[in-house]
Amino acid sequence: MSEALERTERTRLRRVPERASYDRRLAYSILDEGLIGHVGIVGDDGEPVVIPMGYARDGDAVLLHGSVASRLMRRLARGTPACVTVTLTDGLVLARSTFHHSMNYRSVVVFGRGEAVSEEPAKRAALDRLVEHLVPGRSAEARRPNSKELAATLVVRVPLAEASIKVRSGPPSDHRDDLELPVWGGVIPLATVPGAAEADADNRVAMPDYVQAYRRPRDGG
Amino acid sequence: MSEALERTERTRLRRVPERASYDRRLAYSILDEGLIGHVGIVGDDGEPVVIPMGYARDGDAVLLHGSVASRLMRRLARGTPACVTVTLTDGLVLARSTFHHSMNYRSVVVFGRGEAVSEEPAKRAALDRLVEHLVPGRSAEARRPNSKELAATLVVRVPLAEASIKVRSGPPSDHRDDLELPVWGGVIPLATVPGAAEADADNRVAMPDYVQAYRRPRDGG
Repeated sequence: MSEALERTERTRLRRVPERASYDRRLAYSILDEGLIGHVGIVGDDGEPVVIPMGYARDGDAVLLHGSVASRLMRRLARGTPACVTVTLTDGLVLARSTFHHSMNYRSVVVFGRGEAVSEEPAKRAALDRLVEHLVPGRSAEARRPNSKELAATLVVRVPLAEASIKVRSGPPSDHRDDLELPVWGGVIPLATVPGAAEADADNRVAMPDYVQAYRRPRDGG
Repeated sequence: MSEALERTERTRLRRVPERASYDRRLAYSILDEGLIGHVGIVGDDGEPVVIPMGYARDGDAVLLHGSVASRLMRRLARGTPACVTVTLTDGLVLARSTFHHSMNYRSVVVFGRGEAVSEEPAKRAALDRLVEHLVPGRSAEARRPNSKELAATLVVRVPLAEASIKVRSGPPSDHRDDLELPVWGGVIPLATVPGAAEADADNRVAMPDYVQAYRRPRDGG
């Protein structure tokens, strides 16, 4: 497999090309850090629909899952053209001018057609992967799906082939003339941080280590 | 203006309808808390494209902005059908079963056609609003756009009329039979939290209070 993602008409960034990347490993790291993908399809009426979904990366593909009753999932499983975008917000960029205000972020935009993961071993492995993406260590402990639950779930695999990455990082890019202004410039970093885990009322067991010590990738973990 | 958002074929949630809302005030609070909107359109090739963008709510509309050189912005300014989705991730929901794992989140999906904000006073006010959405207090301090910057920027207003809200909160919804399992159940809360602000190398002034004390809405602010 190529280390570089496919460059096509729609993944070529025309503007601010220095923010673009086609590095597969960078795409992997962004996808592994994110929690929500924004999945776009063209609806039955020909207009766009963008829905947030949990996802996981599995090798060179993005896994999506949902109910067999979901129209969106059924469309994705039939291979409707889709766009899956994952964005991490790393900071607020405060420039001296309104014009140069920005955000630091990392995003991956994946274009592709999904295919249903139907065979039982692959489907079970995909559902494990989806749980592991949320909380590493969890899939070995949670009760795995029974046949009824498996039948009620659609899993779709979108190949990670045609994709573009965009990254902005670092301080503001002020116009030189603005640096004399009495206006503070810099970055307010942002991170997604877990709070103390909250056990529900039905617990028979103590909080496991993988919950107690849970960290997001950039949270010193 | 109605307190309720428009219920149409595409905003009616068919699945898990108890997670749906059409409460305009709730949509406002989600939009005011988010930083990135995922904007979907149908590309020139007829396939979906989903791009992350900064945005701000301005009354009963969502404001987007970008370069006049951006094809996406030009399409949005011409009123191409768009979908703007904002999602806040509030927690990881750990059920006893793989099947009932979930996330706590709040999302708004807005369907609409944008219109360009072209008149200078309205455009200037919109750009102030966009900066204020990032960092309250900032628009009064930053240098406002000059005529060249204003001409280089497109601002688009998408009405907040046809939209749906989806919220999941609270503990896992385990199957009753699973409650006897020796598996911990509960929620790991997540929040977007600012770190210590980083001044760039060109500062002439001390860090202002609105930067030093910056908090995201759910971060005790």
